[in-house]
Amino acid sequence: MKKSSPKLRKVAIIGVGSTPFGKLTNDTIVSMSVSACEDAISDSNLAREEIEAVYLGNYVGERLASEGVLAPKLANRLGITGIPTTKVEGACASGGLALRQAFLSVALGLHNFVLAVGVEKMTTSPTDAVTSALATAGDTTLEMRTGLTFPGSFAMIMQAHMAKYGTTREQVAMVSVKNHENGINNDKAMFRKATNIEEVITSRSIAEPIRLFDCPPITDGAAAAILCPMDIAHQFVQNPIELIGSGHASGPVSLTESDDITSFSASVRAANEAYKMADLTPQDIDVAEVHDCFTIAEIVAIEDLGFFPKGNGGPATEQGSTGLNGEIAVNPSGGLLAKGHPVGATGLAQAYEIVQQLRETSSNQVDGATVGLAHNLGGSGAVATVNIFKKV
Amino acid sequence: MKKSSPKLRKVAIIGVGSTPFGKLTNDTIVSMSVSACEDAISDSNLAREEIEAVYLGNYVGERLASEGVLAPKLANRLGITGIPTTKVEGACASGGLALRQAFLSVALGLHNFVLAVGVEKMTTSPTDAVTSALATAGDTTLEMRTGLTFPGSFAMIMQAHMAKYGTTREQVAMVSVKNHENGINNDKAMFRKATNIEEVITSRSIAEPIRLFDCPPITDGAAAAILCPMDIAHQFVQNPIELIGSGHASGPVSLTESDDITSFSASVRAANEAYKMADLTPQDIDVAEVHDCFTIAEIVAIEDLGFFPKGNGGPATEQGSTGLNGEIAVNPSGGLLAKGHPVGATGLAQAYEIVQQLRETSSNQVDGATVGLAHNLGGSGAVATVNIFKKV
Repeated sequence: MKKSSPKLRKVAIIGVGSTPFGKLTNDTIVSMSVSACEDAISDSNLAREEIEAVYLGNYVGERLASEGVLAPKLANRLGITGIPTTKVEGACASGGLALRQAFLSVALGLHNFVLAVGVEKMTTSPTDAVTSALATAGDTTLEMRTGLTFPGSFAMIMQAHMAKYGTTREQVAMVSVKNHENGINNDKAMFRKATNIEEVITSRSIAEPIRLFDCPPITDGAAAAILCPMDIAHQFVQNPIELIGSGHASGPVSLTESDDITSFSASVRAANEAYKMADLTPQDIDVAEVHDCFTIAEIVAIEDLGFFPKGNGGPATEQGSTGLNGEIAVNPSGGLLAKGHPVGATGLAQAYEIVQQLRETSSNQVDGATVGLAHNLGGSGAVATVNIFKKV
Repeated sequence: MKKSSPKLRKVAIIGVGSTPFGKLTNDTIVSMSVSACEDAISDSNLAREEIEAVYLGNYVGERLASEGVLAPKLANRLGITGIPTTKVEGACASGGLALRQAFLSVALGLHNFVLAVGVEKMTTSPTDAVTSALATAGDTTLEMRTGLTFPGSFAMIMQAHMAKYGTTREQVAMVSVKNHENGINNDKAMFRKATNIEEVITSRSIAEPIRLFDCPPITDGAAAAILCPMDIAHQFVQNPIELIGSGHASGPVSLTESDDITSFSASVRAANEAYKMADLTPQDIDVAEVHDCFTIAEIVAIEDLGFFPKGNGGPATEQGSTGLNGEIAVNPSGGLLAKGHPVGATGLAQAYEIVQQLRETSSNQVDGATVGLAHNLGGSGAVATVNIFKKV
């Protein structure tokens, strides 16, 4: 049967909010969610009673923060109890899923004003508890059970990419150098200090060839966005940003079952869906926040998203093509590596940065940016979302 | 601004599936999900490649079964990787949320064929780990932190209901007697043995006045449904069941913040939304599966859903009005008390029973049932879904 192709309303983001990312000792998972949402509501000029639904992205909240039903808990604290609220989970893509569901509910005409939020509280747990919790996103019956964790998975991906395409260790390390450089100006970022190739390559070994500076930190944080139909967005703000394309796909959960571990089919598929909806090509994107959960993941992402041909991600990074003044600015926020990676929050934090870019208010503003993209990945490719934003 | 009121397509359920509920020693959380979905797919006569999206309801899978990103994992095992898959969580209403999201995606024209599934694996964990995991659905900063658990919460609700309405201990116990009686014929049920008022009242004390037989068992299980537009449903099955109304609401998370703990505002609100969409009143419902997570919860539910006036739930139960041949048959499956309560699966298991009733194939068939209702609750009223089904 022919796929359904409903008429979609144009959707705008009229408000965004974010906590600082870092070790937020005095904050709980609920208080961080509230803080990001209060910022987004205030930014949107919307009366909170108008909010009709909440989608909350969170991954390991029950396990690390002992908090379930976070979506109604958030609604309670915001004083908007009664409306439908739903938590969505797709590992580290949970935030992207929340944004995706919020987009769909407005685009399909179900709701006019929807709050999307992502949150994670991780720094209060011991590192091994965090590693075990995150490993639930992998193939637990085969790979993770035998001791593989995500740093190990991405170490294999890095080795495969180097072997297949001749990507060099220095090219991979350049991702960390660039993103840490970008983090310096971002006052929401956890790390605001430069590094260099030598420091990345000689940092503590985690899972060869991955070193400490190839990894994102364990982070607390939350980010949020308010969505509404484009045709009423100007009633609230002067600078609404349109969400012009959205894609969501699943992929293999285990590396074992992947045909080629140097690419994530979920990313490719989600990107194609988003580009098609936006009627754009990868070359139309001016700025992108991509899922650099490890340095090599950014190189895989910029290839999977079509910014560079497969295998060219390393050289493109080395040549500065992904820098703030490059062909396409990638992770101007500092990315997961420098801004931090509170896993359930990341998808919304990416949207936060892209909205700042298109409003021309980013601390690392990309000149003339009119189209931005956010790419969020869960597990080692089990799920991906891609959302494309445009200055109106 | 006026609420959006999109035109909804009519939605049918063309297939359902369920594992037996119980202590399924040889099954994992993934294998149970697969089993229920295989049953539903087979029941629907749909080619699995036609499935366009999956919504999976699960609550404590990361914590008790160490499995995250369950939705793509399930898609992998079903051989339908690539499509969008989303886990939703609303504590014990997670299954109801999965059904709700699947309904919306078909009704709004986003997809034609959607798989909704709910699952939980609980029996492999020690009882105190289960109790702690479930307590994450409560007010963890105040109530649960001071030692309150869900049996304690519902004990307070039971005492309040008895004090306010004169509900007797025997009336509450009758819920357990009725549901255990219903469980005897249900070959999916965990408990298939009769009990009596004396046995309920004198069973082991859990949190006074709640005794062991006022509580549901810790259970493993999964249930699933396939949804599609009504106008093509007959191409697949002779007996599609229409989903004519759906409601979803949030409510207070803590008892402390509730104006009246003898009623759940989320249930009332979700029911009103579903009745309005279905253009029906509570008196039109022939058979209902309601969220009897404790005996008193069924009495609260049959009042909140409008089957009986507030305070009349106890006498109605005593008089047999909720029996198989009563005014409205409630929990013919045996309910959570006898069938079992694998928390994330419950919402879909309720739909499974209602579909059997409207197909006239239930093991406890209610004569002439043409309209059925499923009511799923999360936490102590933090979230509720109500779905209404009709024989075509």
